[in-house]
Amino acid sequence: MYPIGYVKKAEGRTLIVLDKKYEPALLGVDKLSQIWVLWWFDRNDTPEKRSILQVHPRGNPDNPIRGVFATHSPVRPNLIAMTRCKVISVKENVIEIESIDAFADTPVLDIKS
Amino acid sequence: MYPIGYVKKAEGRTLIVLDKKYEPALLGVDKLSQIWVLWWFDRNDTPEKRSILQVHPRGNPDNPIRGVFATHSPVRPNLIAMTRCKVISVKENVIEIESIDAFADTPVLDIKS
Repeated sequence: MYPIGYVKKAEGRTLIVLDKKYEPALLGVDKLSQIWVLWWFDRNDTPEKRSILQVHPRGNPDNPIRGVFATHSPVRPNLIAMTRCKVISVKENVIEIESIDAFADTPVLDIKS
Repeated sequence: MYPIGYVKKAEGRTLIVLDKKYEPALLGVDKLSQIWVLWWFDRNDTPEKRSILQVHPRGNPDNPIRGVFATHSPVRPNLIAMTRCKVISVKENVIEIESIDAFADTPVLDIKS
């Protein structure tokens, strides 16, 4: 597994900037209103965080403890995140999306319809 | 990235059998009617298939060529698949699901609500 690109944020815009070699894989993405963006919780990429198996959902101690596989917690054995994103435009190797719950410079793993 | 478990099929049942050490991460999965199962298209794990960037969706030549990122094609740079599955039961480290579009013995990467 390797990054196909990165989340970029600038001037109020949110972009998925893919490696230039993947541009052909975007054919038709401009016709989709929404896409799945799969990304890596790279800020949590430590053996300690990847070994956490139970959490209070949304970090709120009032929420009963749950297994990470019953949640979307950003700590989990494989740090894969998935977000449904609205497509604004596609230009060459860059997708502009409305927003994403990932930090700037987050590695992107896959895009799906 | 590493498998957390495998898809198993037997006697008409479809199971996600996790490594025993992940059993605590399933707390609360029994309360969910559906889960996301993320898995790896391991049958396509060759450099050749991972370099395919455009396909006829569903392998049908009548469907116009699309970039793999505009599809759910099983060939793509990172071979991640995601399937929404109905939960039947959870017992220890095993989730019984209604069905999944993955072969028996497919590696499972993540489970999400």
